[in-house]
Amino acid sequence: MGKKVAIVLAGCGVYDGSEIHESSAVLVHLSREGAQGEFYAPDIDQMHVVDHVKGQPTQEKRNVLVESARIARGNIKDLAKLNVKELDALIIPGGFGVAKNLSTWAVQGKNFTVSKAVEDTLKAFHAAKKPIGLCCISPVLAAKIFPGCELTVGHDTECEKWPYAKTAETMKELGCKHVNKHVNEIHVDAKNKLVTTSAFMCNAPIHEVYDGVGKMVKEVLRLA
Amino acid sequence: MGKKVAIVLAGCGVYDGSEIHESSAVLVHLSREGAQGEFYAPDIDQMHVVDHVKGQPTQEKRNVLVESARIARGNIKDLAKLNVKELDALIIPGGFGVAKNLSTWAVQGKNFTVSKAVEDTLKAFHAAKKPIGLCCISPVLAAKIFPGCELTVGHDTECEKWPYAKTAETMKELGCKHVNKHVNEIHVDAKNKLVTTSAFMCNAPIHEVYDGVGKMVKEVLRLA
Repeated sequence: MGKKVAIVLAGCGVYDGSEIHESSAVLVHLSREGAQGEFYAPDIDQMHVVDHVKGQPTQEKRNVLVESARIARGNIKDLAKLNVKELDALIIPGGFGVAKNLSTWAVQGKNFTVSKAVEDTLKAFHAAKKPIGLCCISPVLAAKIFPGCELTVGHDTECEKWPYAKTAETMKELGCKHVNKHVNEIHVDAKNKLVTTSAFMCNAPIHEVYDGVGKMVKEVLRLA
Repeated sequence: MGKKVAIVLAGCGVYDGSEIHESSAVLVHLSREGAQGEFYAPDIDQMHVVDHVKGQPTQEKRNVLVESARIARGNIKDLAKLNVKELDALIIPGGFGVAKNLSTWAVQGKNFTVSKAVEDTLKAFHAAKKPIGLCCISPVLAAKIFPGCELTVGHDTECEKWPYAKTAETMKELGCKHVNKHVNEIHVDAKNKLVTTSAFMCNAPIHEVYDGVGKMVKEVLRLA
């Protein structure tokens, strides 16, 4: 039996859910390494629904678990039912859903809170010394929950087009060590078994995002 | 400048839209080959919305273009604005959206019709001798529009778990030559510049689906 890895989703779509291509890359790389991805998501309303053509919120209501099931092809469980004892590792892809549905980062910035179910999940894997892989914006969750941890969200100066260079600064303000890495690189915090990669934070070509996520997945499995 | 390839989507999610992982694989492989994927989708209501946890339709209404934009990260155009002269090739990923929103295959089986916008698009690339890549269920579109063409939707006998072996039979009834191929293989109809691969039709491990889509993308670019 291959290793079992929980993938926690936050909806379906970069602007109000999990980033689709990062989530898919996690699943493909786990499969190639002979591991099994098990999807979970919280059974809660999304913060809001964004029309991805207009980039504007709509009046709709959608559920995080139900929308995440689109990425999971229906094979997904309520995050409340996650049992860390049955799993070898945890991966949380990026996307604004992490900042809107799993935490309040999108609204409150560095004064944000992480939802209790997600905080409990992160702490349970950490306490069991099981590795955690985070990419794009999801490392901010670790920054809040594991003060002093090491992580990357890209570069603090080189991310040109996207306004995310400031995110690296904020990681430092939260007491973490931010390590500059390119999109096809990872940072490993061995002490915390925390593996991070910047994914879409620097607007790189998508195959480089895919490769960076692949390195994260391989390292998470190596540590598991 | 790399080659420009239109990717026509049918929504976002395997049961009522485009299959997310196939769509992502197309984009990643195009990027790796130095080509540019340009997303298009029809600006029409979805046939219906499926709750991907329950596998059941809901009462919601959603728009194919707006939902497809989730896969496209907002960078998508109305299919009505596609200009074949500006593009080098066409790829249509699978998912039930192809059978529900781009055609009536899901409802009418072999007596189905293809929506006019999609038929016009396929015929325009074909007439311009520009290659067309199709995967999973989307080869049925070519079967209807290009009678006598060669294609694969997997195996007519070996697809065990999924009920799609019959699809291969129906391709023959529509006057096409169906060629049995494994998930990591493609079939090339050189005369029609048509490249097909079975993707999720046979319930294979997702990295094999990814690799099969990759072979399709490379061959489409080679023919472009």
